[in-house]
Amino acid sequence: MPDTPANDAPFRVLVDCEFGEDVLVYQFTNLYGCTIGKGTRVGAFVEISSGVSVGERCKISSHSYICDGVAIGDGVFIGHGVVFVNDKYPRAVNDDGSLQTGQDWDLLATRIGDGASIGSGATILGGLTVGEGATVGAGAVVTRDVAPGTVVAGSPARLLERSRRFPRGVVPAA
Amino acid sequence: MPDTPANDAPFRVLVDCEFGEDVLVYQFTNLYGCTIGKGTRVGAFVEISSGVSVGERCKISSHSYICDGVAIGDGVFIGHGVVFVNDKYPRAVNDDGSLQTGQDWDLLATRIGDGASIGSGATILGGLTVGEGATVGAGAVVTRDVAPGTVVAGSPARLLERSRRFPRGVVPAA
Amino acid sequence: MPDTPANDAPFRVLVDCEFGEDVLVYQFTNLYGCTIGKGTRVGAFVEISSGVSVGERCKISSHSYICDGVAIGDGVFIGHGVVFVNDKYPRAVNDDGSLQTGQDWDLLATRIGDGASIGSGATILGGLTVGEGATVGAGAVVTRDVAPGTVVAGSPARLLERSRRFPRGVVPAA
Repeated sequence: MPDTPANDAPFRVLVDCEFGEDVLVYQFTNLYGCTIGKGTRVGAFVEISSGVSVGERCKISSHSYICDGVAIGDGVFIGHGVVFVNDKYPRAVNDDGSLQTGQDWDLLATRIGDGASIGSGATILGGLTVGEGATVGAGAVVTRDVAPGTVVAGSPARLLERSRRFPRGVVPAA
Repeated sequence: MPDTPANDAPFRVLVDCEFGEDVLVYQFTNLYGCTIGKGTRVGAFVEISSGVSVGERCKISSHSYICDGVAIGDGVFIGHGVVFVNDKYPRAVNDDGSLQTGQDWDLLATRIGDGASIGSGATILGGLTVGEGATVGAGAVVTRDVAPGTVVAGSPARLLERSRRFPRGVVPAA
Repeated sequence: MPDTPANDAPFRVLVDCEFGEDVLVYQFTNLYGCTIGKGTRVGAFVEISSGVSVGERCKISSHSYICDGVAIGDGVFIGHGVVFVNDKYPRAVNDDGSLQTGQDWDLLATRIGDGASIGSGATILGGLTVGEGATVGAGAVVTRDVAPGTVVAGSPARLLERSRRFPRGVVPAA
């Protein structure tokens, strides 16, 4: 995979990333150590951390933060201002007062299934799975797994309805 | 209207915008195809999309995202980290797996009335009207119209009280 | 205190700040008139306003906004996309329609105690105290004081449990 996106834009910091074909990464972006699948678009003010994989034909909207431990499938929509979490009890310092490093806590892995849609302003706690074709409503705080093809919303997020768009929880292949 | 703000600042991407007199746009801003009324201030890390109109003497605080379909009146306060939405069921891809374009979904229009105040961290769903002089509490998720002069808060946002500042839901003219 | 961080990074606007030793400030940051204690790290897309003090060995994660009136202790974790508030009824304009300035409203002071942890996506209303060693869950909207050593979550945030990590609400000294 190439190490640059298909487009040019000012004010980008892209370090040690791999990009599939036709990936667009817009201005004011901070990506490091991640893999972005072909055709995916990454909006302004987005940060994607080391260890993240994003699938093909996704849309990662502006102001979102994707942390280490998150794996995003194909055809996924991530709204604006979405925040992922990967630590149950994050702390700045250890019990002895020293700064924490990556060795001082357990990384929680999160998986977002193919064709899912995460609404703008949502917060996704660590260690969860959002199933294929599921929809997370705008502003939701997701504290449990989300079943494929369902719609959840609220804080904490609860089941609203079966998805109309992907009733069996699957997104057709390209 | 001129096509540049009244101030200079580093790290701005301003494309095809119109600015009234005395508009201030700070650093780290991404504005395209929008119209900003006179005297309005736009904070850092703000993105304003194509088709947005912002009135006069507004304050758009840092980290907020204003999407296509949003019309903001005069004297409106938009807090920090506010996110607007314009699509009920956003998806990255169509049923055939191809990337969605602007033609593949229905734009929901949102209107923020004169003198309204949207608290920091709020999420405003698409297709809604926030009335004149209304207040949306910090962190609220607004899923219904907000009547003029009222105060709403919570997730989903519910009526808290009549506004103390603008009891008749109107903001005096300058 | 020196007026530059210990590291270099592109796309920073750092104006009238004081930094302790070994402070790291990453790219896409907007800091003005604030004081940052030694060993603290400030992530991308962070804005810290005039008058803010941040203690030693803190971690301020990406996309967070810290407003005037906020005092953060030592060893504090601020997650991603955290927003602070300092005004109960923010408005863009006065009753006569003129733009508000700093003299037109009352600043609410907020204090975050040593060793506290503010989860990603949280909103902290103005005028509150989050006690030593307390934990605010991801996505919470904090509307009341948080007692030392407790865990709160939700919108509005409510008591979840006593902290496991800092049961007496104190963080050991370095």
